[in-house]
Amino acid sequence: MHTEIICIGSELLIGFVNKNSAYISEKLGTIGLKVSREISVGDDFEELKDVFEEAIKRSNIVIATGGLGPTFDDITREVISEVTNKKLIFNKSVMKSISVHFVRRHYRGKIPKSNDKQAYVLEGAEILQNSIGTAPGQILESNGKIIVLLPGPPGELKPMFEASVLPYLKERFERGILRTKILHTTGLPESFVNDKIKKIVDIERELEGGEISFTILSSPEGVDIKIMASGRDEMLIDKTIKNLKEEFYGILGQGIYGEDNQTLESVVGEIFIRKRKTLAIAESCTGGLVANRITNVPGSSLYFKEAVVTYSDISKKRILGIEEQTLNKYGAVSKEVAYEMAEGIKKNAGTNFGLSITGIAGPKPSSTGKPVGLVYIGLASDKDIIVNQFNFTGTRKDIKTRISNASLDILRKSLI
Amino acid sequence: MHTEIICIGSELLIGFVNKNSAYISEKLGTIGLKVSREISVGDDFEELKDVFEEAIKRSNIVIATGGLGPTFDDITREVISEVTNKKLIFNKSVMKSISVHFVRRHYRGKIPKSNDKQAYVLEGAEILQNSIGTAPGQILESNGKIIVLLPGPPGELKPMFEASVLPYLKERFERGILRTKILHTTGLPESFVNDKIKKIVDIERELEGGEISFTILSSPEGVDIKIMASGRDEMLIDKTIKNLKEEFYGILGQGIYGEDNQTLESVVGEIFIRKRKTLAIAESCTGGLVANRITNVPGSSLYFKEAVVTYSDISKKRILGIEEQTLNKYGAVSKEVAYEMAEGIKKNAGTNFGLSITGIAGPKPSSTGKPVGLVYIGLASDKDIIVNQFNFTGTRKDIKTRISNASLDILRKSLI
Repeated sequence: MHTEIICIGSELLIGFVNKNSAYISEKLGTIGLKVSREISVGDDFEELKDVFEEAIKRSNIVIATGGLGPTFDDITREVISEVTNKKLIFNKSVMKSISVHFVRRHYRGKIPKSNDKQAYVLEGAEILQNSIGTAPGQILESNGKIIVLLPGPPGELKPMFEASVLPYLKERFERGILRTKILHTTGLPESFVNDKIKKIVDIERELEGGEISFTILSSPEGVDIKIMASGRDEMLIDKTIKNLKEEFYGILGQGIYGEDNQTLESVVGEIFIRKRKTLAIAESCTGGLVANRITNVPGSSLYFKEAVVTYSDISKKRILGIEEQTLNKYGAVSKEVAYEMAEGIKKNAGTNFGLSITGIAGPKPSSTGKPVGLVYIGLASDKDIIVNQFNFTGTRKDIKTRISNASLDILRKSLI
Repeated sequence: MHTEIICIGSELLIGFVNKNSAYISEKLGTIGLKVSREISVGDDFEELKDVFEEAIKRSNIVIATGGLGPTFDDITREVISEVTNKKLIFNKSVMKSISVHFVRRHYRGKIPKSNDKQAYVLEGAEILQNSIGTAPGQILESNGKIIVLLPGPPGELKPMFEASVLPYLKERFERGILRTKILHTTGLPESFVNDKIKKIVDIERELEGGEISFTILSSPEGVDIKIMASGRDEMLIDKTIKNLKEEFYGILGQGIYGEDNQTLESVVGEIFIRKRKTLAIAESCTGGLVANRITNVPGSSLYFKEAVVTYSDISKKRILGIEEQTLNKYGAVSKEVAYEMAEGIKKNAGTNFGLSITGIAGPKPSSTGKPVGLVYIGLASDKDIIVNQFNFTGTRKDIKTRISNASLDILRKSLI
């Protein structure tokens, strides 16, 4: 059984990072389908035709992304039509969905003529609804080979893949069982995590009719440990993963903040809801990033009440009541100001917790010579106010991200 | 002239994002070399052999990354040896560099036996120094085809590519000059941009010794138009791009917000600085995202003074002075509340502009039945207060991003 991914778009060959392939191969892994090759190719008719002809010859399943848009350089449909010898047929109900999409977005003019193109479907293909954009996906069976066409934008591809493609392939091709478990850590260096877990990872383990493997992945949020176990006996696999997971928790403890699709902000949200506590935030150098992450979680209005971004001394004084003399004596980036900010926002908002952040995101040091990356994070609770100092490195955006990770992790650890 | 990139490593086919290909293709573009295909393939001898045989047949230059490490699954050297029929020869000076690497890192034990493997070089290959790790790169000429082998870790690949590979390829193959120009738009549907620019893009144009091409790209910030021009005459290319750029501006006007590395927030920042105006923001459903984007720009403290995220009715009343009766009569997501929020934040902060956002990010509609994606954006200036209504679609995060794009674009258009 060979499965191949073809990513279409000239942008992929001039410097754009391709993330669709990683997404699709990971998802296919969950139903035991292994990808044997991934090809990126530009919007060039002849090149694309060669790629598809070869791929269909080699593989049983060919999944293509991109080139389904309404513009002149979107030619995937036409290429597949030529390669498989299937006609492109105008589909009224697809055209209707496209119109509905424009109506929903309160688009006032006429629907652009070029969108008509997207209503053409390959003869005999199954149409996959696009819940976000205008290009429908298609699944085509041709001479015993499966060809799946998906839109390129990840926001359109992902819901379509999960709702339609994965269930389809699972039913037809599932090969044994593969389970993965991801454990997320934050604030720990990769080599530290690596050394800590070495004794678990290095043990030779056997799993009947399958295998166990591990990976360490770095992301802007921290270091992830991925456990993969495959085989035929679902109960055995689940038990194996559960035991391994417990070994990792035994070693890293609270260093692990969550699993799989959980994010630092979703974990923090769950704890706030469980403990029925409320939160307000006073940010300076992070400029609203922490509040933005907190509010990425649906239902966050239950615990998150307000934030202020006090980017100037004047607003720190007026909104949070920071003392003039504290600012003069210690500077805006100081333990003392972080303390008063946390105290001020908690009092203003009347919440259980007040989080404060003041620091230097760079690229230049402060006018008083404080270094880039210096930051103070304060947390006022109903009991006390604690301020932590950090020194981060990286670009302005890296530093903002790292501060937001540390802030959310402080919230998490204080609440549990 | 065909150039192909082959990325080797099983991790690339189970969910890892491949960034080497984007890096290499971008660098090759600077010397006018276009990549016609990128292939990712696992550490599998037979599959890898097929991939190399086909690639060498098709292309003049084949650049491979990965599979040069010391472990059992690193087999790139062996595969190339078999495909090109060149022997692998133990190279003492490479072995010495590997030893030096271990000494530099204060490694105490004996050099692991498995590193010996990395000292084998293909017969006749040029050796490329690895300044960071142990695996040297190699450039091999075989039957008039160039094969470049590079280590997989980006930290090792990049310095080697810049120091050795790019100069080598530049000297042998530089095909004139390639210039690109990206024009960014926001708030316009992709098909609308396509139809608008069709008459420019459809004209057959000639450029002596080179070519002109166009691409349309969708990103979360909007739709980009990319112009690429290649040739030998630098002045002619620059003039061509300048003229094309003016044609696009003639058609899309203020729809184009910036070029190349500019972002919506950096463009807004430049205008604020130029006009010496100041800004404060009151956000609700975006939860701080707009302030976060504004403060991603270095130097934003010159014009951005403060933001508040009033996520509850209570904070809207207390911080911004929204009237109880306005909230009761129209609801928090209303034109009237957006108006009062913009007025309130401008007055509080004493800035020239007060931006306000209230809406429903989803995934659930409001308790009063207002739909997901409904949003009001208000802007109070020294002259007046204007509120715009929008209806966005997508996930919670998509909607937040789209609202932030629209908000920044309103700022941009009001200021120019």
